[in-house]
Amino acid sequence: MAGTGVFADILDGEVYKYYADGEWRASGSGKSVAIVNPTTRQTQYRVQACTQEEVNKVMEGAKVAQKAWARTPLWKRAELLHKAAAILKEHKAPIAECLVKEIAKPAKDAVTEVVRSGDLVSYTAEEGVRILGEGKLLVSDSFPGNERNKYCLSSKVPLGIVLAIPPFNYPVNLAVSKIGPALIAGNALVLKPPTQCLLCNQGAVAALHMVHCFHLAGFPKGLISCVTGKGSEIGDFLTMHPGVNCISFTGGDTGIAISKKAGMVPLQMELGGKDACIVLEDADLDLVAANIVKGGFSYSGQRCTAVKVVLIMETVADTVVEKVNAKLAKLKVGPPEDNCDITPVVTESSANFIEGLVMDAKEKGATFCQEYRREGNLIWPLLLDHVRPDMRIAWEEPFGPVLPVIRINSVEEGIHHCNASNFGLQGCVFTRDINKAIMISDAMESGTVQINSAPARGPDHFPFQGLKDSGIGSQGITNSINMMTKVKSTVINLPSPSYTMG
Amino acid sequence: MAGTGVFADILDGEVYKYYADGEWRASGSGKSVAIVNPTTRQTQYRVQACTQEEVNKVMEGAKVAQKAWARTPLWKRAELLHKAAAILKEHKAPIAECLVKEIAKPAKDAVTEVVRSGDLVSYTAEEGVRILGEGKLLVSDSFPGNERNKYCLSSKVPLGIVLAIPPFNYPVNLAVSKIGPALIAGNALVLKPPTQCLLCNQGAVAALHMVHCFHLAGFPKGLISCVTGKGSEIGDFLTMHPGVNCISFTGGDTGIAISKKAGMVPLQMELGGKDACIVLEDADLDLVAANIVKGGFSYSGQRCTAVKVVLIMETVADTVVEKVNAKLAKLKVGPPEDNCDITPVVTESSANFIEGLVMDAKEKGATFCQEYRREGNLIWPLLLDHVRPDMRIAWEEPFGPVLPVIRINSVEEGIHHCNASNFGLQGCVFTRDINKAIMISDAMESGTVQINSAPARGPDHFPFQGLKDSGIGSQGITNSINMMTKVKSTVINLPSPSYTMG
Amino acid sequence: MAGTGVFADILDGEVYKYYADGEWRASGSGKSVAIVNPTTRQTQYRVQACTQEEVNKVMEGAKVAQKAWARTPLWKRAELLHKAAAILKEHKAPIAECLVKEIAKPAKDAVTEVVRSGDLVSYTAEEGVRILGEGKLLVSDSFPGNERNKYCLSSKVPLGIVLAIPPFNYPVNLAVSKIGPALIAGNALVLKPPTQCLLCNQGAVAALHMVHCFHLAGFPKGLISCVTGKGSEIGDFLTMHPGVNCISFTGGDTGIAISKKAGMVPLQMELGGKDACIVLEDADLDLVAANIVKGGFSYSGQRCTAVKVVLIMETVADTVVEKVNAKLAKLKVGPPEDNCDITPVVTESSANFIEGLVMDAKEKGATFCQEYRREGNLIWPLLLDHVRPDMRIAWEEPFGPVLPVIRINSVEEGIHHCNASNFGLQGCVFTRDINKAIMISDAMESGTVQINSAPARGPDHFPFQGLKDSGIGSQGITNSINMMTKVKSTVINLPSPSYTMG
Amino acid sequence: MAGTGVFADILDGEVYKYYADGEWRASGSGKSVAIVNPTTRQTQYRVQACTQEEVNKVMEGAKVAQKAWARTPLWKRAELLHKAAAILKEHKAPIAECLVKEIAKPAKDAVTEVVRSGDLVSYTAEEGVRILGEGKLLVSDSFPGNERNKYCLSSKVPLGIVLAIPPFNYPVNLAVSKIGPALIAGNALVLKPPTQCLLCNQGAVAALHMVHCFHLAGFPKGLISCVTGKGSEIGDFLTMHPGVNCISFTGGDTGIAISKKAGMVPLQMELGGKDACIVLEDADLDLVAANIVKGGFSYSGQRCTAVKVVLIMETVADTVVEKVNAKLAKLKVGPPEDNCDITPVVTESSANFIEGLVMDAKEKGATFCQEYRREGNLIWPLLLDHVRPDMRIAWEEPFGPVLPVIRINSVEEGIHHCNASNFGLQGCVFTRDINKAIMISDAMESGTVQINSAPARGPDHFPFQGLKDSGIGSQGITNSINMMTKVKSTVINLPSPSYTMG
Repeated sequence: MAGTGVFADILDGEVYKYYADGEWRASGSGKSVAIVNPTTRQTQYRVQACTQEEVNKVMEGAKVAQKAWARTPLWKRAELLHKAAAILKEHKAPIAECLVKEIAKPAKDAVTEVVRSGDLVSYTAEEGVRILGEGKLLVSDSFPGNERNKYCLSSKVPLGIVLAIPPFNYPVNLAVSKIGPALIAGNALVLKPPTQCLLCNQGAVAALHMVHCFHLAGFPKGLISCVTGKGSEIGDFLTMHPGVNCISFTGGDTGIAISKKAGMVPLQMELGGKDACIVLEDADLDLVAANIVKGGFSYSGQRCTAVKVVLIMETVADTVVEKVNAKLAKLKVGPPEDNCDITPVVTESSANFIEGLVMDAKEKGATFCQEYRREGNLIWPLLLDHVRPDMRIAWEEPFGPVLPVIRINSVEEGIHHCNASNFGLQGCVFTRDINKAIMISDAMESGTVQINSAPARGPDHFPFQGLKDSGIGSQGITNSINMMTKVKSTVINLPSPSYTMG
Repeated sequence: MAGTGVFADILDGEVYKYYADGEWRASGSGKSVAIVNPTTRQTQYRVQACTQEEVNKVMEGAKVAQKAWARTPLWKRAELLHKAAAILKEHKAPIAECLVKEIAKPAKDAVTEVVRSGDLVSYTAEEGVRILGEGKLLVSDSFPGNERNKYCLSSKVPLGIVLAIPPFNYPVNLAVSKIGPALIAGNALVLKPPTQCLLCNQGAVAALHMVHCFHLAGFPKGLISCVTGKGSEIGDFLTMHPGVNCISFTGGDTGIAISKKAGMVPLQMELGGKDACIVLEDADLDLVAANIVKGGFSYSGQRCTAVKVVLIMETVADTVVEKVNAKLAKLKVGPPEDNCDITPVVTESSANFIEGLVMDAKEKGATFCQEYRREGNLIWPLLLDHVRPDMRIAWEEPFGPVLPVIRINSVEEGIHHCNASNFGLQGCVFTRDINKAIMISDAMESGTVQINSAPARGPDHFPFQGLKDSGIGSQGITNSINMMTKVKSTVINLPSPSYTMG
Repeated sequence: MAGTGVFADILDGEVYKYYADGEWRASGSGKSVAIVNPTTRQTQYRVQACTQEEVNKVMEGAKVAQKAWARTPLWKRAELLHKAAAILKEHKAPIAECLVKEIAKPAKDAVTEVVRSGDLVSYTAEEGVRILGEGKLLVSDSFPGNERNKYCLSSKVPLGIVLAIPPFNYPVNLAVSKIGPALIAGNALVLKPPTQCLLCNQGAVAALHMVHCFHLAGFPKGLISCVTGKGSEIGDFLTMHPGVNCISFTGGDTGIAISKKAGMVPLQMELGGKDACIVLEDADLDLVAANIVKGGFSYSGQRCTAVKVVLIMETVADTVVEKVNAKLAKLKVGPPEDNCDITPVVTESSANFIEGLVMDAKEKGATFCQEYRREGNLIWPLLLDHVRPDMRIAWEEPFGPVLPVIRINSVEEGIHHCNASNFGLQGCVFTRDINKAIMISDAMESGTVQINSAPARGPDHFPFQGLKDSGIGSQGITNSINMMTKVKSTVINLPSPSYTMG
Repeated sequence: MAGTGVFADILDGEVYKYYADGEWRASGSGKSVAIVNPTTRQTQYRVQACTQEEVNKVMEGAKVAQKAWARTPLWKRAELLHKAAAILKEHKAPIAECLVKEIAKPAKDAVTEVVRSGDLVSYTAEEGVRILGEGKLLVSDSFPGNERNKYCLSSKVPLGIVLAIPPFNYPVNLAVSKIGPALIAGNALVLKPPTQCLLCNQGAVAALHMVHCFHLAGFPKGLISCVTGKGSEIGDFLTMHPGVNCISFTGGDTGIAISKKAGMVPLQMELGGKDACIVLEDADLDLVAANIVKGGFSYSGQRCTAVKVVLIMETVADTVVEKVNAKLAKLKVGPPEDNCDITPVVTESSANFIEGLVMDAKEKGATFCQEYRREGNLIWPLLLDHVRPDMRIAWEEPFGPVLPVIRINSVEEGIHHCNASNFGLQGCVFTRDINKAIMISDAMESGTVQINSAPARGPDHFPFQGLKDSGIGSQGITNSINMMTKVKSTVINLPSPSYTMG
């Protein structure tokens, strides 16, 4: 159970501690922040409200720890990560419990998230051994006018301190997808658990449990830290901190604000999306319907890569809508503990925002395929047909179980709608035709286009990136490791040309 | 005109000279070999019958030249290749003339071959600058138990002397595709022009002209050589010569024999093929017909990557056969000087072999879509329908303008026929369906599978390789350069661990 | 001569035009900005003072042009760049003249800059063909739990519009090092010529001439633009413009300010440096002296990668100082037209700043190895010995012909001084000892460490990067092209697993 | 203990079984081959004398197993290899025991070999996941004249059946260095344990134990086989077998013979070496002496990468020889069970050969630094000073604890001797000077040059290759995996150009 057993150490009475200098601590602020269970709408957990001074100390410690860590053999770094991965998987139950209570993630999915996170950490360890262990050797005589008297040895070195800010919806998986690459690359890591709003920290307690698994694995003290608290107190303070050498953020619009405030540090941002699903007439319509339901309604639509607008050829629209509705009717709606398909959305303000989009669409003439129904944070799945571009839901992302369908009369119309969005995370196209599939994918201005499947972040070694307002930098294990390094070169200058003979 | 102008130097009376030690020479043998024009069946040219002693001298000179060349800056190597490319393109007319006279290549195609060869040389130069100019820097602490006290600098160095043996059908293009990579990588190059049979050297004179363009570009003497002669005298002598460090051969079965005789040297072999064209029911049948005609009958089918067997679903076979026949009826048959589509095949023995395959099929019940017609080496285009696996033409490659069609009742049947072949060069599949296209391509055991197009060697930077008896090693510009290098590494051992800080 | 011949088009009376929409234009502002010749301290040239509205139009045009350019074959993009390179080299004289007049660059060096720029553009073209022409194919079954039913095709696509801001000291070379990569990668390019101070634009006219060479090469209209003007009017307006998708800046502290203002766009920043030269006792002292003079005083020290502080072992300090002084005595001081070694620094304020550093050092007890002498912007070369960490010149970069020497008693002391700097561009170490060379290079926190040679940006295909306040992102041809692309992926989802057989 | 516990299954009375079709079998020949213990010179073990028919069956089974294995997800292949690695390490004791008894390897080193082998298998698994999981995506418009209408997907596919023949000196480690790469790449593997001579199989029993660990890990039946027997019966039969798609051989001259007989299959050969150790005047002479002893006498000099000739500057020769002699005097000579440094060489014929070289040198005037002493296969360590090029030992490899020293008067003399050898495996140079170190390494025609350390095969991820008669193909984990794959490409042909937009 969360906060018990090996996790008893991370709890201080009713408040979870923060992690600094290799130990679990209560904040000197004496204050804490509540985490409300989306299902019960009651306070479920409390975490420390850390102070700026505590953040400063964390940064100082991280700097020292990083220098030593950068001098640790790659295989030893990997060994510790493998250990952490094993411990994480071993303790999947209590961590999954936090996910259920904090973010109303269906119980089974919560377990899957933890296990997949362990696999990700292990894969990252091995990938990093290879990326960091290999540099380039360049010779001067490639360039006109030069003899071969300069040998350039170029390699990838750590950035320093990486600030990781994951989102509430995958507080463990999207934390380790930043932690793993940062650590194997030789960086120190400061984790700021998800902040959905100014005062709420859904996912923080799951994150703290996950961090404890790294603690148990025996990483050097100071190398990993986790601070919790109010955004107003430590949010900008962290992102603008001169000690930070890289920011890896997944979340919403906040990311754009962070980009504007941050100094000259590499940014990895994965923000919102409005992933389009373009359906052509020759598509496998059962496959389409299955993917719309899975893509649009899994975890109640609270996924960056959820299908967020369906752009379907008029001639097959009725059939697909019917098939989707049949499937929606079978979805189980209720609490995450019961493994329901649709569970309460993360906060009341989120539910209100979704309702706003739905009502706007209704007023402007969208067809509701189901009756709109809401109880507290729980919103029943809703397909909105005949949505038109003048409705907010055609462009904004609800992050909830409501999905707009726009009927189109040509492929070009679909591509145009997709590219007119300020988002560009993923998209998908359903067609059997190889030429259309490739050419539409080429034309869609999204970071990734899935042919004949719903958008998806994984498998985790695939590149993953948002274009336009959806982000900057490419993720996926390999790209994240590369992103968390910088180039350094040594040039050996010889007194006369030398060519390698064999 | 061939053998005139700047090319006057390469002619000794009526016999073309060979190229050694940076100059054009007559062989001490006093003998020459005739090259018969496939159209007139008269002797067109004569080339030197070099001796083994002359080969030995070429090898000695090449060894010395290579050592100096390996110490020449990459950009200077590239500069000379760019110069040779420009000279080659400038002199496209006389070289193309040789191709017309020696191998009956249609005049326009002959010009194209030379121009494309110039482009290939330039592209190769720039590619090589990059491949040779970049090595790897590896550190020891990737492997368990090691500290970082060893830095390994690994780079690609020349092999030494590359023996290039191109085929008769692209004696210029398939020569430069070996010469370019060999030279930019720092090797010396010995060219043995195509030998279709023991005593005939079709393509040799075009090759000699091409070599002269490299001579004019100013490469160091001894670096490039070109020896002509009888296979019985210098064939095995060359391939088994201890001075040879790499053999790059394109041709027929001889390649397998060479492989068995050659010592411990890297081999790049591109031998025959029996490229299958699998046609599914949902394919664009006009596209199919156009590609069968282009793929099967261009240059009278004398291409490694010609379509050599059509495997077509019964339900669409009649339609496609009809479309193909309509197109075949429009092909112009005659001499290469008139830019005919179908020209005489390279030798009489080749024509006899083709006739043998055709007659065998006739006896066993194949349907001839056209009347079989032959005049000298000129064979009219012929589509053989209802071919069955018991006919030789179902498995052997005619290398002529005759194409068997096998009707199939399932995709699996087509794949099975394709994979039962001892060849595995290329193949193609025609279908609109993305899933079938990918999965059939995956299942076909050929070096390359073209989806919705006839097999093709180019563009020249694409990988190109034969599996099974079709060859060893991958070609294409990048792969050929890599193949013509070997790895050498230097390990810097430090007295104590050192990690690169940044 | 500048502004004449083919360059007559770019001049409007006495004011140079700006370049937009494929043509040369006078600004609607009716205003111009003067460029003062550092030698004469008189106005040499005038350029347009563009308006924000004109910038907006440039952005709109660039967006349209970029979409078409991104659909242009790679080899065609390269062909145009090769053409521009040839035109640039052909017109080296008038462009070099601008460099002499605008930034007092010695005449010979000015010609060299233009020629080297042409080579850089050509090299970039070929490099880009390869980087953009090759993506990755990833399969899903690498990651635990997955079958191979997903094929991910990942490639590099253009960012959109690149804003390039080069510095005054290499206004041509450091412009094309941004323009070349941007264009070959499929981006549009907006050039804002160097702004050394708010109202001065040294280097702008050379840049305009260079841009005209690209115009003459025939690039599509709108793809390249060049706007001049006052920093206060269009500086921040450009860097914060929503149409900009990438900023590539070389210059001083301004870069940090730009980083903080810029939104979520990739940044390539190369700012100041304080390149240290660590000299060990076993070094080749003649080599050291030669490199200190070349490294510290070339182009009067106005180079990012100039040696800016010498950290020398006490035991060899006297000898080296003596050798350096002997060489300094031979340097020719005077106007750039006479090919003097030391020429006037770029502006009076720059000269004043240098003087401030020198006087501060004098007051605090530094030894002047030469008499301090200044006439207008011209400052005679000065070596300051016995400099100590409390002097400003130990840490700040003069960007002039004055060089501090700090005597050290251990290698560690030298490394410590180097790493205590907030800069981290390059550094160099002189020693014969292989172990010390590698280990000191590893320990120095600089983007590049040169062993036994002065810091240097080239050869241009080597990685080049500043750490800490010296910059973000790695440059050099290859890295710049990569930096000006983003990743896009297409995932083909198959209905069942498929493995490629061969 | 060997042949007991889980290994009881692999023993049939007194004869070890062979492994085929997933089970341990006695040969139908009813015959066996004896393995003589080098220390006792008594028969220690017996292994099956397999027949050609049994080899044929193994090949048939391997072919079937390979097709299924090539369709197994990469992570599953890796998982099985990790399992095998763990089992191998778990059973290090009995396997090490075989190494002691079969090849007289000192007990501690024998254990180390097994443990290092486990690490190698694990590293290989992860490396292969990456190499096989990533292909290239190429576009057609890189090459002049092409639009982007062809997308080429190129990947690495298995070769088929790999024949692995390791040497007697590392029968486990150099077997898994072939088995691991072969398997992770999707190949089937047939192991022919070391054959030092026609009738002896030293190392075979250790290999059989190792194979059993793979069996226990649960690899599919038929995928791995291990056949033992007489070289005359199954040696050539195996290497010339048409079912073999790749030969990976480590051993002596036999490799050259195999190369000449083998057909068109990729060869990875690591044959003999005559690794030179060049010692300069400025070298750290203690380091030199330590490395000469370790490099020349570890495992009694029976290592491919042993130092086999010392080329030392006359001025420091006396000092180094003295230091080496002092160290040699401390070496423990005797049976491997006692962890002696010098143990009996593998066979009597080997001892005789060594003696022949030593006596030849004596006759020709070499100075023996120690008395020559031999008892059975046991030869006491011997340094031969003042060796000259006319002695056999200057060029031939003794593979025993005897080491020639040649005194040189210039670096060039050393390089010349090194390059005059027909071998080119590794070499080493001792000098403190960075310029000399790099330039001598560049000049030495050896696959690897170690600066300031004795030659060494590891760490195992470093490239490892022999030039000239020392081999073909580069090894090391990464290179071996690549070598055991071939390229296959799929080209998607689009009806019109399509460019990826983002």
